[in-house]
Amino acid sequence: MDFKELRERVYEANMALPKHGLVVLTWGNASELDRERGLFAIKPSGVPYEDLSPSNMVICDLDGTVVEGDLRPSSDMPTHAELYRSFENVGGVVHTHSNWAVSWAQAGRSIPCYGTTHADYFFGSIPCVRGLTKEEVDGDYELNTGKVIVEGFEGIDPIAVPGVLVRNHGPFTWGKDAAQAVYHAVVLEEVAMMAIRTEMVKMDVEPAPQYLQDRHFLRKHGPNAYYGQG
Amino acid sequence: MDFKELRERVYEANMALPKHGLVVLTWGNASELDRERGLFAIKPSGVPYEDLSPSNMVICDLDGTVVEGDLRPSSDMPTHAELYRSFENVGGVVHTHSNWAVSWAQAGRSIPCYGTTHADYFFGSIPCVRGLTKEEVDGDYELNTGKVIVEGFEGIDPIAVPGVLVRNHGPFTWGKDAAQAVYHAVVLEEVAMMAIRTEMVKMDVEPAPQYLQDRHFLRKHGPNAYYGQG
Amino acid sequence: MDFKELRERVYEANMALPKHGLVVLTWGNASELDRERGLFAIKPSGVPYEDLSPSNMVICDLDGTVVEGDLRPSSDMPTHAELYRSFENVGGVVHTHSNWAVSWAQAGRSIPCYGTTHADYFFGSIPCVRGLTKEEVDGDYELNTGKVIVEGFEGIDPIAVPGVLVRNHGPFTWGKDAAQAVYHAVVLEEVAMMAIRTEMVKMDVEPAPQYLQDRHFLRKHGPNAYYGQG
Amino acid sequence: MDFKELRERVYEANMALPKHGLVVLTWGNASELDRERGLFAIKPSGVPYEDLSPSNMVICDLDGTVVEGDLRPSSDMPTHAELYRSFENVGGVVHTHSNWAVSWAQAGRSIPCYGTTHADYFFGSIPCVRGLTKEEVDGDYELNTGKVIVEGFEGIDPIAVPGVLVRNHGPFTWGKDAAQAVYHAVVLEEVAMMAIRTEMVKMDVEPAPQYLQDRHFLRKHGPNAYYGQG
Repeated sequence: MDFKELRERVYEANMALPKHGLVVLTWGNASELDRERGLFAIKPSGVPYEDLSPSNMVICDLDGTVVEGDLRPSSDMPTHAELYRSFENVGGVVHTHSNWAVSWAQAGRSIPCYGTTHADYFFGSIPCVRGLTKEEVDGDYELNTGKVIVEGFEGIDPIAVPGVLVRNHGPFTWGKDAAQAVYHAVVLEEVAMMAIRTEMVKMDVEPAPQYLQDRHFLRKHGPNAYYGQG
Repeated sequence: MDFKELRERVYEANMALPKHGLVVLTWGNASELDRERGLFAIKPSGVPYEDLSPSNMVICDLDGTVVEGDLRPSSDMPTHAELYRSFENVGGVVHTHSNWAVSWAQAGRSIPCYGTTHADYFFGSIPCVRGLTKEEVDGDYELNTGKVIVEGFEGIDPIAVPGVLVRNHGPFTWGKDAAQAVYHAVVLEEVAMMAIRTEMVKMDVEPAPQYLQDRHFLRKHGPNAYYGQG
Repeated sequence: MDFKELRERVYEANMALPKHGLVVLTWGNASELDRERGLFAIKPSGVPYEDLSPSNMVICDLDGTVVEGDLRPSSDMPTHAELYRSFENVGGVVHTHSNWAVSWAQAGRSIPCYGTTHADYFFGSIPCVRGLTKEEVDGDYELNTGKVIVEGFEGIDPIAVPGVLVRNHGPFTWGKDAAQAVYHAVVLEEVAMMAIRTEMVKMDVEPAPQYLQDRHFLRKHGPNAYYGQG
Repeated sequence: MDFKELRERVYEANMALPKHGLVVLTWGNASELDRERGLFAIKPSGVPYEDLSPSNMVICDLDGTVVEGDLRPSSDMPTHAELYRSFENVGGVVHTHSNWAVSWAQAGRSIPCYGTTHADYFFGSIPCVRGLTKEEVDGDYELNTGKVIVEGFEGIDPIAVPGVLVRNHGPFTWGKDAAQAVYHAVVLEEVAMMAIRTEMVKMDVEPAPQYLQDRHFLRKHGPNAYYGQG
């Protein structure tokens, strides 16, 4: 099988992470799923960004088995696989330790929707899911991370809320492909930063009115969408 | 009609936004009005900054009708048009989601004048106007955004206060042309940042004395102006 | 008279300000005094940094009279002149609106010495001088700014404390020449940033012990100095 | 004796400090020990980063005596020597005034482990050791700085906690070589930044569960380590 284009796209998505200031050192990873073939490409583990190339992206199936590649996949790979198995319209996943989003995750708080920057991409709060139990951490830790995310999205459309905070850990975002997952990672970090600063300006600030959130989300995503950001 | 120079100037103004760190992704937009012809050029909607060129700027009339251009104008175009219709000496408008200014907008607070950096460009507080009602949001939303700004400036000279915070949204700035509107967007973001930090240093800080505000504003703008910043 | 070298040095000092992130737009200015000739070179007013060159630096005497140059000197020139007249070992002055230092100036607080970064360059607090009165602002404003600084340094050795915060305005720093004044502007901004963050980490933090402040200052400045920073 | 490779590695480690934004001006220093020969190379004192080269790194023995080099070693050299003498598996040391870590040091607080970014590299809190006494500061100050660090690590494995905050001063980090000490300096600064912001998001936040800290540290460092960050 030929993974040339998939490898290329996943490589580009990973390289966009340091470019957008979302990662330092070797942190972070992006993947993209070819849902027809049931396979996804993901960043290898522990390789510096300057040494990445399309050819060292690792190909895995949806069970998390490596299908092609000499390097080990990112240790977060089982989390990606679980998200692909459970969120059926998701085609790309990104994980970073971007620092504003991590700060919310470490504080264990969901990010309230304080304005239109948030509302244009995330419908309602960006949830911080529950912490994993000792059993979940001691067991299949990275798989269980994915399961706790999925559990936290019961009743939430992952397309309408394309990202999450894993408690005491950091953000995962997703989209129709890896590039869109990166885009949402950039937005999440901006929104996380602005939300902290909003609370600095006014301690007891209220979320944006629901009708404003509705309008902004629907002008981009509803059947009558007319909005190209900018 | 020939829009070569206008397109060029508006293109340059838009490109200055990422250069000054005021926007990420495709966010933000700048426009400039040719008041004699009653037409303005504005950034197209949803186009990445690296793909912009003078030729894809969109030309609109003051009613907000596209006069020339293959792309849709920025979705904020009706706000720009309303500002041009109502603020007679304004020749350029900029909208960004720059993060410090957005933080004040999301908190719903006007930015007090804490010092001379602010006073050199904005006379008095930078107002955060009232939030739009459900009817205003559900109706001609972007047009109504402009109307709420204009309403908030009753009794305020838009030349003396060349910018505003739209509640739960973000800043608009303006000037005699697009370049000056960009300049004011840079100043507004700096001032917004410093004002938050000033309150961090001293919680119950007072605005700068009125006589200091008067002096700084008038040495730049009064009949006896002698001041070139720097 | 030949000002080639002086112009060159002052040009380099001014260009270092945006390079170190201390200024945006056309803000900020640096000057250097040739004390033997009683003349100093300073940045012209309102010229963008990219348009500066050694040849457009303005030469002034210690009374603040322009001696050579087609452009107006920075409007802060009379403040520089006053500092040169009153602080006899000072040969370079820098003024910026660097944002952390401005935040302390706007809050009207002197910066306490919380650690060795501060103590290596500034002996004791970095003073925020009193605000100017209405009469001082309405009169020779920029000259009076210098006088209020000098008044605030009664009993303080300006070589041991090579910088100040002007209330509701921003920092001035100085040194034996323009390059050292820039160096101190960089240090002041770092120290101002760290001091705010120190108070965020611990609200009621105490200054560093006096014996630690003494040691750090004297290992650099005393008769037994042995310290090259780094 | 030939120090070519050691000089090269220490030069690279020092140059990585400004590249990672951990230092300004001439601040900071990195060293690496050749334990077999009992000698280490360290940055010279007071030399700008752009003037560094492998050849001007200074070679010292474990008593802190200069063995080769025309320049004085960094004034922090005796602290490095003490750490090499006392921490037997440490082969590289870095000292910076990186601003988030300094803020914790100035506040006199250890950095709690709020999440997995921290837990991946530092097992438990990053300690802020006690301040030096007047006698320790007035005596062999830099040597005593090392001794206070060592005292603070009684009962702590320096490999499991590869960094420290010196009160009212700043961070030291270490590793098996200079490159790893730099890596840990980058991590410490990120973690220090995130921890402050975590407390901004939630004032009374708790550290991450111990079982999560255990898992993250052991997946990288235990006998069953499987983790390449990313």
